[in-house]
Amino acid sequence: MQKKGLLVVISGPSGAGKGTICKALLEQNDFWLSVSSTTRQPRKGEIEGTNYYFLSREQFEDRIAKDDFLEYAEVYGNYYGTPKSKALEAIEKGQDVVLEIDIQGALKVKDTYPEGVFIFILPPSMEELKKRIINRGSETPESLMTRFKSAYKEINYISKYNYAVVNDTVEEAVQKIESIIVAERCRVDRVKEKILDSKEGIIHEQLYD
Amino acid sequence: MQKKGLLVVISGPSGAGKGTICKALLEQNDFWLSVSSTTRQPRKGEIEGTNYYFLSREQFEDRIAKDDFLEYAEVYGNYYGTPKSKALEAIEKGQDVVLEIDIQGALKVKDTYPEGVFIFILPPSMEELKKRIINRGSETPESLMTRFKSAYKEINYISKYNYAVVNDTVEEAVQKIESIIVAERCRVDRVKEKILDSKEGIIHEQLYD
Repeated sequence: MQKKGLLVVISGPSGAGKGTICKALLEQNDFWLSVSSTTRQPRKGEIEGTNYYFLSREQFEDRIAKDDFLEYAEVYGNYYGTPKSKALEAIEKGQDVVLEIDIQGALKVKDTYPEGVFIFILPPSMEELKKRIINRGSETPESLMTRFKSAYKEINYISKYNYAVVNDTVEEAVQKIESIIVAERCRVDRVKEKILDSKEGIIHEQLYD
Repeated sequence: MQKKGLLVVISGPSGAGKGTICKALLEQNDFWLSVSSTTRQPRKGEIEGTNYYFLSREQFEDRIAKDDFLEYAEVYGNYYGTPKSKALEAIEKGQDVVLEIDIQGALKVKDTYPEGVFIFILPPSMEELKKRIINRGSETPESLMTRFKSAYKEINYISKYNYAVVNDTVEEAVQKIESIIVAERCRVDRVKEKILDSKEGIIHEQLYD
């Protein structure tokens, strides 16, 4: 009933669990995962095309000039970006594309591709978010408080999203996202023209044969 | 995450199979089915409160005067209507309410309750719709063609709905409707205030204790 695939943007504050959710979502479904490009050096074990596409600064800036990013940002001297042409090709072929991205990135993607499905992952509670941030280790009390306050501020961006999914358990969150994707495929504003075209074709055949 | 229930309006052309879908949907879920009121005489076997609420003309007009219908119509001298107060009470209590109704009725409900979830049931094809209308029997060739043309015209009202579900099989259609209901419960415009209120409450506790 639908030709084009969906761009499903999974986003939310750091520590809400979007990475784990995306991993499970991709294991259970035939979605196409968008892989970011970056100019930073590959770390040990990182695989080109799986973790990132590793580009030189010149290559990256060339693609910026060609408008080939859904969004990009420079962080501590390195570029990070979401390649545009491959994702849009997949979507045109009817493939659903999943993009896991932080809130700032998601808001930029919304500017360039507003017809995407923007899903905000919420931690079950702020207490739980605090635990998750602590459990990552490597945080001083000060950086922990900074991260925590930043997560609080970020939650206010929820109004820019289409859906909010609470990460009570990964299984439930994945099921909700799967339901959202099924529902979005049924949205009249996505499928209307197709239905009216095809039904009109069919009815004309049927009525007048 | 959500206080209020949803009003789920299942509608579509005659012969698309909305009755069968609603029956299966209600068997498998804890939804509250809205029962219509009518002034027509009960037929043999019809049960008050299950098939219809049977009202006198005076009772019905009294309720019209009290604005107690989500929609109503007079057909061949009898009133038919969707009671408002019971449905809204259930919704306020967090109960999802399902309403199976023809297209004209659904459009009136949309005027009085635009925050409902409006689902249009489509036959798998016009050929299939023709078969279904024929299989009901009791149709002359002329009335069949009238019904069929009317179903075609009605399909153009799809643009007034939120979702379109093709009734390929009842199981698939029911699953899609269930997904739509899950997704609607996650919609930010339905849950935003609740999340921000509760998270703010929680975060204030957490940050400053």
